[in-house]
Amino acid sequence: MAAMDWKKRRTLPGAAVKRVAIVGGTHGNETNGVQLAKHFMRNLGQVQRPSFATEVLLANTFAIEANTRYVDEDLNRCYLLADLTDDAKAETNRERKRAREIDQVLGPKSSDEPRCDLVIDLHNTTASTDIALLMAPDDEFSHQIAYYLKSLDSGVRIIHWNPLADWALCPSVGRSGMTFEVGACPWGCLVPDLFMRSQKLVLAALDYVESHNKRIASGGSIGPEVSMPVFKAIGVSIDYPRNEEGELLGMVHQDLQGGDFKELSDGVPLFQRFDGEVVAFSREEHKVPEQHKKVFALFVNEAAYYEKKMALMLVSQEEAKFSMSVEM
Amino acid sequence: MAAMDWKKRRTLPGAAVKRVAIVGGTHGNETNGVQLAKHFMRNLGQVQRPSFATEVLLANTFAIEANTRYVDEDLNRCYLLADLTDDAKAETNRERKRAREIDQVLGPKSSDEPRCDLVIDLHNTTASTDIALLMAPDDEFSHQIAYYLKSLDSGVRIIHWNPLADWALCPSVGRSGMTFEVGACPWGCLVPDLFMRSQKLVLAALDYVESHNKRIASGGSIGPEVSMPVFKAIGVSIDYPRNEEGELLGMVHQDLQGGDFKELSDGVPLFQRFDGEVVAFSREEHKVPEQHKKVFALFVNEAAYYEKKMALMLVSQEEAKFSMSVEM
Repeated sequence: MAAMDWKKRRTLPGAAVKRVAIVGGTHGNETNGVQLAKHFMRNLGQVQRPSFATEVLLANTFAIEANTRYVDEDLNRCYLLADLTDDAKAETNRERKRAREIDQVLGPKSSDEPRCDLVIDLHNTTASTDIALLMAPDDEFSHQIAYYLKSLDSGVRIIHWNPLADWALCPSVGRSGMTFEVGACPWGCLVPDLFMRSQKLVLAALDYVESHNKRIASGGSIGPEVSMPVFKAIGVSIDYPRNEEGELLGMVHQDLQGGDFKELSDGVPLFQRFDGEVVAFSREEHKVPEQHKKVFALFVNEAAYYEKKMALMLVSQEEAKFSMSVEM
Repeated sequence: MAAMDWKKRRTLPGAAVKRVAIVGGTHGNETNGVQLAKHFMRNLGQVQRPSFATEVLLANTFAIEANTRYVDEDLNRCYLLADLTDDAKAETNRERKRAREIDQVLGPKSSDEPRCDLVIDLHNTTASTDIALLMAPDDEFSHQIAYYLKSLDSGVRIIHWNPLADWALCPSVGRSGMTFEVGACPWGCLVPDLFMRSQKLVLAALDYVESHNKRIASGGSIGPEVSMPVFKAIGVSIDYPRNEEGELLGMVHQDLQGGDFKELSDGVPLFQRFDGEVVAFSREEHKVPEQHKKVFALFVNEAAYYEKKMALMLVSQEEAKFSMSVEM
């Protein structure tokens, strides 16, 4: 099978967007996103723009029904091209089957001409990420949208997916796309401030796409070059204190709780054990590569990551430079 | 079958406590309570006191395993005497069976001499209840403990169970008991500040029981009469805005989010619809009985109550007067 040719596939500065997809419920218990998608489905006029079509989709319908993250397997790990095109694998379980159905709507990923030019996948986290937009490092169009959204809401931050040959994530099925990772939201629960801001920002993303199309239609020149901070994983995640049976012996320290995007330096409190003892952060002990002078915490105390044995991950920050399609 | 004779059953000022039970995981995804119980199980010395025995129990082991509230039925609705003694009903599902097993350990409820004199059941909520202690209105011994805990932590509040002939709740199986309802905690997630305060307060409750026993052993007189505010349901709960199919059309208003125990007066914002419209509180529309001059919000935006069609309930406040067993 041919490898993914991302350069060929991306939504580019000169290409008009024909179709955008908004996806809710990739994880069934991330209720803010599920409800925002349902709201858009009942009010399709709100997400339509003159120059392109917008579709709204509920992804893991089984898990939404059960108010759980997934029923058999994390759906947001099912979108590798190699898996989607493997007939045997696609029949393994409910999420694998559903991923294939969704691939036909958003992509398919195996096509050079996927149906959707932009996929916005609505997620929530119990971590205090505020509005984090996760996207492929090479996806300039998504970076443009993120830059615009950041200008509207200072709580917006950008995170790069790890540099890989392919991604198993839902938005990777279309040309360009991003995960809206919004928190802190408890499972099964709407958080009003985050819901309203998410709604506003998704609509603003559609406005940006409309301006992009208009600029192309009018033959206008592209906008200015800009620079934007982006966070990226450094390959280090840290598990909670546990005993030999894997049982938790402690939790995130009170000072770190809610501390997504905070810089971690040697000696800051990381965990507090149930017996009261404090575990401090140590660059050496936690194996932070030397080249990362500053590291930051991300996905601190995300409920779904207890089973992944991850209390937080470490990210570094750098600047991404790119041209805006339009000046907003 | 004979009705429950609560007066005969209660732990009384003159009766020494022989056994206390601490229960975690009545709801399997209320992780703070589950983990606190597991911590105590690994450190039994911490919960032992010279004059009585303490046992620690995980209740809904199936649901803890699945990280879900319950598997077949809410276990904390399975402890009515009539249900526990109904052989056919007890075989209906996993929670009904487990309730019977737990009843043998904590009670049994059908006995005049239950094994446990005090049951502390550890729960969490996504509502911002802080440390709410729920107990039977007639359970003076639990009120004494609550009064002491309130003196140690100003975030402690007391809520009465509805006045009923019997209760389906776990702590009702022993003589006296209470639900530790601690929030805001997301499902599946530890919240450090609330965990540490819960741990401290459970241990303090055991200290109070120890002092109670010492006072009885030494023939000392009971402590002073005290007065303490308690909240009680007024029979009014309010559902989220929904359409005819039952789908959510809105959420708790940002001003009310986190607003447990706040007074609600006519006109305060209650919900915000996804379309932006604000729904205000109205005593008349929401059918608040005239005699309750002041009402307060409780269990605001609790995730488990979406399916119960309850966005919040209303409570009134009054003073409870009782004598302390000892002066702490």
